[in-house]
Amino acid sequence: MHVAVIGLGLIGGSLLRALRAAGHRVTGYDADPATRELAGAAGSIADAAAGAELVVLAVPLPVLPGVLAELAAFDGLVTDVTSVKDPVRELTIKSGLRRYVGGHPMAGKETSGFAAADPALFAGCAWVLCLEPGETALDDWLTLAALFTTLGARVVPVTAAEHDRAVAQISHVPHLFAAALARQLDGNPLAGALAAGSFRDGTRVAATRAELIVAMCAGNATAVHSVLRNLIDDLKAMDEALANDALTPLVELGGSLRRAWPARGGEPVEMPVSVDGLLALGRDGGWVTAVAENRVSVTTMRPETGRNGS
Amino acid sequence: MHVAVIGLGLIGGSLLRALRAAGHRVTGYDADPATRELAGAAGSIADAAAGAELVVLAVPLPVLPGVLAELAAFDGLVTDVTSVKDPVRELTIKSGLRRYVGGHPMAGKETSGFAAADPALFAGCAWVLCLEPGETALDDWLTLAALFTTLGARVVPVTAAEHDRAVAQISHVPHLFAAALARQLDGNPLAGALAAGSFRDGTRVAATRAELIVAMCAGNATAVHSVLRNLIDDLKAMDEALANDALTPLVELGGSLRRAWPARGGEPVEMPVSVDGLLALGRDGGWVTAVAENRVSVTTMRPETGRNGS
Repeated sequence: MHVAVIGLGLIGGSLLRALRAAGHRVTGYDADPATRELAGAAGSIADAAAGAELVVLAVPLPVLPGVLAELAAFDGLVTDVTSVKDPVRELTIKSGLRRYVGGHPMAGKETSGFAAADPALFAGCAWVLCLEPGETALDDWLTLAALFTTLGARVVPVTAAEHDRAVAQISHVPHLFAAALARQLDGNPLAGALAAGSFRDGTRVAATRAELIVAMCAGNATAVHSVLRNLIDDLKAMDEALANDALTPLVELGGSLRRAWPARGGEPVEMPVSVDGLLALGRDGGWVTAVAENRVSVTTMRPETGRNGS
Repeated sequence: MHVAVIGLGLIGGSLLRALRAAGHRVTGYDADPATRELAGAAGSIADAAAGAELVVLAVPLPVLPGVLAELAAFDGLVTDVTSVKDPVRELTIKSGLRRYVGGHPMAGKETSGFAAADPALFAGCAWVLCLEPGETALDDWLTLAALFTTLGARVVPVTAAEHDRAVAQISHVPHLFAAALARQLDGNPLAGALAAGSFRDGTRVAATRAELIVAMCAGNATAVHSVLRNLIDDLKAMDEALANDALTPLVELGGSLRRAWPARGGEPVEMPVSVDGLLALGRDGGWVTAVAENRVSVTTMRPETGRNGS
């Protein structure tokens, strides 16, 4: 397959190297001339995309509209790796792209830039691929699922809205919780002197660069608002339950869910391909491990045998 | 010094062994006959306390009133290791104890029971010793500070109310935050499949046994209510700031506080002993490292050289 990767930071660069290592023809482009030199990339987006069957957009959200404008003439398949999906979907609809499938590899980010690119970055990682009923072409979705599963990713089929809500729940709002907890130390060195494990863990991601936290929350504002308000209601319920000696069930539920996480997947099984079937798989916490003609191999969850997360 | 330790679980057992290793005469008592046998303990609280200069109460809060009743005739110094201080202070006042100084060693708790007791448990740990202006005898406070600093503890002088608020901030409410975040997985296996580092860290202490979380929050209800409501207001402010593009300063403050934690202490210096001076030291995040006649060696904070927490 001929793939063009636009944006060669950690994710784009790792994908370029992983696809080349898997024997694909890969062209690339990055706004930074030194990165282009290092990656053996093309001199323009149009040059990188010329003749490609697939373009992967691996640029930050604010840069996307400009890149989409330069791809107006491209009639192949397009995906992206942006961490928010509904806003990107709207941009691609506006830009007139016919064959877009939203993607989001949930891959590590401690380092950045092409120099940190790692062709093994996607082995074992969850790679969300959006599937919008009545909108996404199932064949296009399967093409991407086949490609990314061969890189070792667990491909999770969801709608853009489901993705955005889930990442608000498990990543964006947890960053705001950590920031709020860390602010308890403001003008309060005594608390800092007594703080130990629960503070250390609960505030760890507060040390993330502020502009990254703000960008991911602002880019996913609708879902973040909704999840944050739900959680504020949960905390109010805990406050009330504490006064009424009724805290136990609220705390027990959180504990049993945490102890059962991450859920252990069963042995892969095959299932026929359908939009509804794939979306049900994703909602149940399962994923696609391989794609064959008209069938996918999938891993489904066995919630009854959840194991202890560390 | 002759010390009696009542309650020989992880903390009481470790203290008994640490004091014996330091050459003190130590008697003990535990409600469990097998533990008494294992620890070479006395057959009753009265027998353990007979002739002791200091009694350390290392029993759970609900058991304390009964133990205090059995110590009605004891006229020596009494301290405790309970994780909440104002409710214990009220109990000791009611029980008529004349020489009580509240204590709370912030020591590890992954294991429990006398079998897990470790004489090195207190090396480097923060050991809160309560100092109530006009109430605590400074000589008694210094006797305990001298004893626990020789076990390697950093002795932190605070009032009971200051202690209770600080532990609500850095431990009790963080457990409720973790439980609330973990509950996002309820009926939501998709979120569990996508969850990674920020969810793992932010929810780790949710896996603590529910009865322990409830006991510590209920035992410190006044401070937990106040801190939880403040934090709910902070989260509401973040929700509003997100809508107004004003999130950055709120998130930046949490980040800079977290990156500066834990603060690095300066070289120990000596200071004259006074209630006000000790309480100011504790409020500033400092602690006592050794006690001499009329002077204490203390470590004060150098906030300008905060180092990165991990």
